[in-house]
Amino acid sequence: MTALGANPEEIVEQLQRCTAATLTGWLHGRGYRNAFIANLHCVRPDLRMVGRARTVRFVPLRPDLAELFPNREENPHRKAVEQIGAGEVLVVDAHGNDEGGIFGDIMSARLKAQGAAGLVVDGCLRDVWQIQALDLPVYTCHVHAAAVGRALSAVEMDGIVACGGVAVRPGDYLVGDPDGVVVVPAALAAEAASYGDEHEALESYIRERVLGGATLAHAYPPSEALRAEYERQRRR
Amino acid sequence: MTALGANPEEIVEQLQRCTAATLTGWLHGRGYRNAFIANLHCVRPDLRMVGRARTVRFVPLRPDLAELFPNREENPHRKAVEQIGAGEVLVVDAHGNDEGGIFGDIMSARLKAQGAAGLVVDGCLRDVWQIQALDLPVYTCHVHAAAVGRALSAVEMDGIVACGGVAVRPGDYLVGDPDGVVVVPAALAAEAASYGDEHEALESYIRERVLGGATLAHAYPPSEALRAEYERQRRR
Amino acid sequence: MTALGANPEEIVEQLQRCTAATLTGWLHGRGYRNAFIANLHCVRPDLRMVGRARTVRFVPLRPDLAELFPNREENPHRKAVEQIGAGEVLVVDAHGNDEGGIFGDIMSARLKAQGAAGLVVDGCLRDVWQIQALDLPVYTCHVHAAAVGRALSAVEMDGIVACGGVAVRPGDYLVGDPDGVVVVPAALAAEAASYGDEHEALESYIRERVLGGATLAHAYPPSEALRAEYERQRRR
Amino acid sequence: MTALGANPEEIVEQLQRCTAATLTGWLHGRGYRNAFIANLHCVRPDLRMVGRARTVRFVPLRPDLAELFPNREENPHRKAVEQIGAGEVLVVDAHGNDEGGIFGDIMSARLKAQGAAGLVVDGCLRDVWQIQALDLPVYTCHVHAAAVGRALSAVEMDGIVACGGVAVRPGDYLVGDPDGVVVVPAALAAEAASYGDEHEALESYIRERVLGGATLAHAYPPSEALRAEYERQRRR
Amino acid sequence: MTALGANPEEIVEQLQRCTAATLTGWLHGRGYRNAFIANLHCVRPDLRMVGRARTVRFVPLRPDLAELFPNREENPHRKAVEQIGAGEVLVVDAHGNDEGGIFGDIMSARLKAQGAAGLVVDGCLRDVWQIQALDLPVYTCHVHAAAVGRALSAVEMDGIVACGGVAVRPGDYLVGDPDGVVVVPAALAAEAASYGDEHEALESYIRERVLGGATLAHAYPPSEALRAEYERQRRR
Amino acid sequence: MTALGANPEEIVEQLQRCTAATLTGWLHGRGYRNAFIANLHCVRPDLRMVGRARTVRFVPLRPDLAELFPNREENPHRKAVEQIGAGEVLVVDAHGNDEGGIFGDIMSARLKAQGAAGLVVDGCLRDVWQIQALDLPVYTCHVHAAAVGRALSAVEMDGIVACGGVAVRPGDYLVGDPDGVVVVPAALAAEAASYGDEHEALESYIRERVLGGATLAHAYPPSEALRAEYERQRRR
Repeated sequence: MTALGANPEEIVEQLQRCTAATLTGWLHGRGYRNAFIANLHCVRPDLRMVGRARTVRFVPLRPDLAELFPNREENPHRKAVEQIGAGEVLVVDAHGNDEGGIFGDIMSARLKAQGAAGLVVDGCLRDVWQIQALDLPVYTCHVHAAAVGRALSAVEMDGIVACGGVAVRPGDYLVGDPDGVVVVPAALAAEAASYGDEHEALESYIRERVLGGATLAHAYPPSEALRAEYERQRRR
Repeated sequence: MTALGANPEEIVEQLQRCTAATLTGWLHGRGYRNAFIANLHCVRPDLRMVGRARTVRFVPLRPDLAELFPNREENPHRKAVEQIGAGEVLVVDAHGNDEGGIFGDIMSARLKAQGAAGLVVDGCLRDVWQIQALDLPVYTCHVHAAAVGRALSAVEMDGIVACGGVAVRPGDYLVGDPDGVVVVPAALAAEAASYGDEHEALESYIRERVLGGATLAHAYPPSEALRAEYERQRRR
Repeated sequence: MTALGANPEEIVEQLQRCTAATLTGWLHGRGYRNAFIANLHCVRPDLRMVGRARTVRFVPLRPDLAELFPNREENPHRKAVEQIGAGEVLVVDAHGNDEGGIFGDIMSARLKAQGAAGLVVDGCLRDVWQIQALDLPVYTCHVHAAAVGRALSAVEMDGIVACGGVAVRPGDYLVGDPDGVVVVPAALAAEAASYGDEHEALESYIRERVLGGATLAHAYPPSEALRAEYERQRRR
Repeated sequence: MTALGANPEEIVEQLQRCTAATLTGWLHGRGYRNAFIANLHCVRPDLRMVGRARTVRFVPLRPDLAELFPNREENPHRKAVEQIGAGEVLVVDAHGNDEGGIFGDIMSARLKAQGAAGLVVDGCLRDVWQIQALDLPVYTCHVHAAAVGRALSAVEMDGIVACGGVAVRPGDYLVGDPDGVVVVPAALAAEAASYGDEHEALESYIRERVLGGATLAHAYPPSEALRAEYERQRRR
Repeated sequence: MTALGANPEEIVEQLQRCTAATLTGWLHGRGYRNAFIANLHCVRPDLRMVGRARTVRFVPLRPDLAELFPNREENPHRKAVEQIGAGEVLVVDAHGNDEGGIFGDIMSARLKAQGAAGLVVDGCLRDVWQIQALDLPVYTCHVHAAAVGRALSAVEMDGIVACGGVAVRPGDYLVGDPDGVVVVPAALAAEAASYGDEHEALESYIRERVLGGATLAHAYPPSEALRAEYERQRRR
Repeated sequence: MTALGANPEEIVEQLQRCTAATLTGWLHGRGYRNAFIANLHCVRPDLRMVGRARTVRFVPLRPDLAELFPNREENPHRKAVEQIGAGEVLVVDAHGNDEGGIFGDIMSARLKAQGAAGLVVDGCLRDVWQIQALDLPVYTCHVHAAAVGRALSAVEMDGIVACGGVAVRPGDYLVGDPDGVVVVPAALAAEAASYGDEHEALESYIRERVLGGATLAHAYPPSEALRAEYERQRRR
């Protein structure tokens, strides 16, 4: 097996070679049956997303929540965007709201400028085609041109949240590809990344063999014979 | 207008004479456009619910959340049930989960024994017909016979939550009737209760007049003439 | 076959002995494949509804629609309620809106006082338990305690409308039972009523025979033998 | 523990004292995570359902399927109804279809006359209030007054089916209460019934104690002390 | 501020530089809280749509509606297509029907040949990839290969309609981009277009500054300092 | 009319020139009102799919179904993939399940290597972007990165199935384009293909004429004059 990542940089590098499918399967085997956020629209299917979670939680709007953050820059929505670090993914708990865009092009541009690794919104985007131009991996439930201020209020930053039916804790590793986004708990990330990186290489080999005519019985899962061939070919 | 309630007991007493419809309308006029929790199943339509909110928030299950509350009695779900006070309503944020009952008959019985005023679950109940026997006003989204421990973890007590698309803060007054549940912010409760109590009396009068043949133009909203009759009749 | 109703009173009397299921089946055979309004909540399952359609059509609210009916009593919503005749059913096209009650207890009471035969709302009611007390057959999609004025505007009275996926024309006969509501075009009503009235008597006979042990092959559809028995028993 | 049922009659008798919630929980512990059929409308909440599964599977209508069963009595829908035995529950796989009633009052009456223990329809009923009069436990997804012949064709009897998201095999024990219906594999039924019967007695005791003021820490799950009291009380 | 468009051509020209998000926000501020049609599939995201509304309204099919337009060319569906003018957008009210395509390639080609500015269907298209080839901005809810004649009948042209939860009046300006379609009342269009045109230029400037590292506090909304810079740069 | 295909190869060749819309319309005229599978995501809109159906049926997972196929290679899922023939389309009945991918890249690659003509999944895919790279026409309801083994069990191969609300029999011809997939019964395929092939040529001619300015009255449906021109032009 690939050596366990000694540090977050190595973990991220390995995760960049992993698919959401492989990581979701591995986590399932560890008892994490509910680690994949489905039903997301992937705004930039050409970009892979890997990064560590920061979170912000919204609740439905009510006027008296405005008193919580009288200073606009203390609002958890804006504060989360300003404090995002390089390589971090902002995860937004908005319980699937479909009434207004939580991120438009400018808030998204700020994330990009800060070096964020991605954005996952359990709610709506607006200005979606300008966001497409940002080279930022973004996942969303819906698109709505209204601004979200009419429907939701941010109440908390960096708490545990629910996003698309999955619990997310700050510091989790999020990995996104066109299938969707998988949430890898930090404590399992080194092992998941090492397994996944290795496993993708094997799956690639199997896929080529299957395209070349190998049967499922021989190749998937790999028979001892195929696995031995794989090991020989790797050593070369 | 009825005198503003000098204390919570008076507010509760007045609210018991108010409908969800009247309070929802009044709050809308005050800018609270989103105060009514719709799409709830009312388990006991014969009981009116009035009480102050306590909250508990769930997120989707993941094994490592178990480490948050190693002592079972500290789990926010159980703790909320044990700490509920007389006249309080437990409000559960479970983002509409439909995979397992968050309250069964025994947890509900404990609420009843503590003097709780009601239970509102943005998720599922189990043992629903035994809960019907408890003389406790209960509102739920769904019914599912599995226990929720397989699907959700409680993470927080007495925070601001989302319940059925409405923000709820601890201390809010919740008023439930067969239409559903309306959330009245504590700071507005005295005024809402006073208005509502008054308004229901007027609506009752109007309804009787309309059943007796009055036209909408005369009675709804009340013309000056009808309002004068109402005032005369009240004074008697 | 029962004689064709010579006039609307006879048609109504016959339809009161027909089920929605029987009429829906008969209309299907005449090419009306889409005559049944499903997914309605029947507020008073103990009351059968039979009456002729009046209609009102709503569209989503926008402020400039207020200019269409500057005089409140000209608003199609209120006008339809004031002009309803005895034995008529008000049919509301609100494309399934779930944001606010189109009828509350007072507007419904006015319908009752006018002798309306029922109310079918492709949208929401409010004050649902007070409406239950009115002895008026009412069918609705949803319940919501807010007033609909915040979400919809009435734009037309007595036009052709869509209600719950079925086209309704003023003058149609509407027949409701706990299954839901079937829409019978006026031109077919005498024949449908005559057929249905007859057919229910036969079905009743079949049901009793089946409960007594008759096989489906013998009784449903009725064999010649069973039909002959039925005819003999009728003549007595 | 209650002795394992030596025969199906004893199993059925014990299951009649079990709730869907208890059995669903026990099956979950045995790896059957998906044994409960949720989202069913329970037509007769006053009746408990216990019986063994017979199945019929429908697919969407297409005219050439008529050639499969040229003899009407061989149609799996009718054949299943004619062949149902006393104490059996007919389970209908119709993948949640909402376009027409699969059972009306006469087909349901035939089930009743044959001594069937119940009916579970992953589709629609018609004539729902006449079915309510039959003293037969019936569960359905929807109600629609059209006859299903316009939408579905029966293709198979007594195969393995999907019903409301749960796999059902002929011979399974089905247990229904107002929460819904749980599917107990035949091989596990004796053990499930014995456990459940026992467990309900304990839960009943706990519920009474909780209503009398016992804390969750003491009573739910039962502490050693409470369990000892329970055992003492039972022996009396 | 940009000068108010003196005529429809100028308004259209300015609106072509506006996003749905900006116009939706501006209309919200004017009390038009419900001006954006969400959940549409944008068939040609590379094309911006701006034009004035013509409308056609459908209701569910019933055979006797055929008598309304015995002459085929008088059918409102066909008539609307034949009468569309250059720069007009056809808006179809079909209450989200998903049973058959209301427009296929040939009807859409006729719109294109007439110079229509776009098509918005609150229902289905068929032949979707041939429609993609037409260089016509088209928005739809669903795709279905059946022809709609089996499910819906057109009943009215150029009335007020509901489309995707928004009221549309003939003559409204419709503006579509990949977020969806916003409905601008004619009486507000000059002002909206002027505001929007101006606002997009400012937002563009802000976006560039944010991508260059400006904080939200400085740039969004623009501080006085940034606004001053923007004004200086514009004057150059 | 084009000559009826004398053999399956000719039928397939003609069907490759037919659209789903044309075939769906023709089948509707023959009484097959429900032949089109809507709401599918078309993974490769650039590829047309034509092939003959093989089927596999899944039901929700339960542990004791494992005993049905103790030998892994006998599992209907794997067996169907191994036995697929060149020019065949695998049709998967999974009643719209959204909990796990039934096909990932390797199983799909095996289909490709066997010469399959396509894959239609009434459930989920995983590894969707790797499947996009396979040059195989694939249609799916959802995408989910988990493996389906946690949610469903295959129980039958080559039976009659329901797929996306349409009945599919082995041997049916399936034709897919970006609108979705239409199911043509084998007995009607030669006639459908011949009609469709001819009809597309006519529609192409009409579309060009309409783009050139022809009115609907003249061209759609084609007037006698236009049809004559078409025939003249064809003969050249």
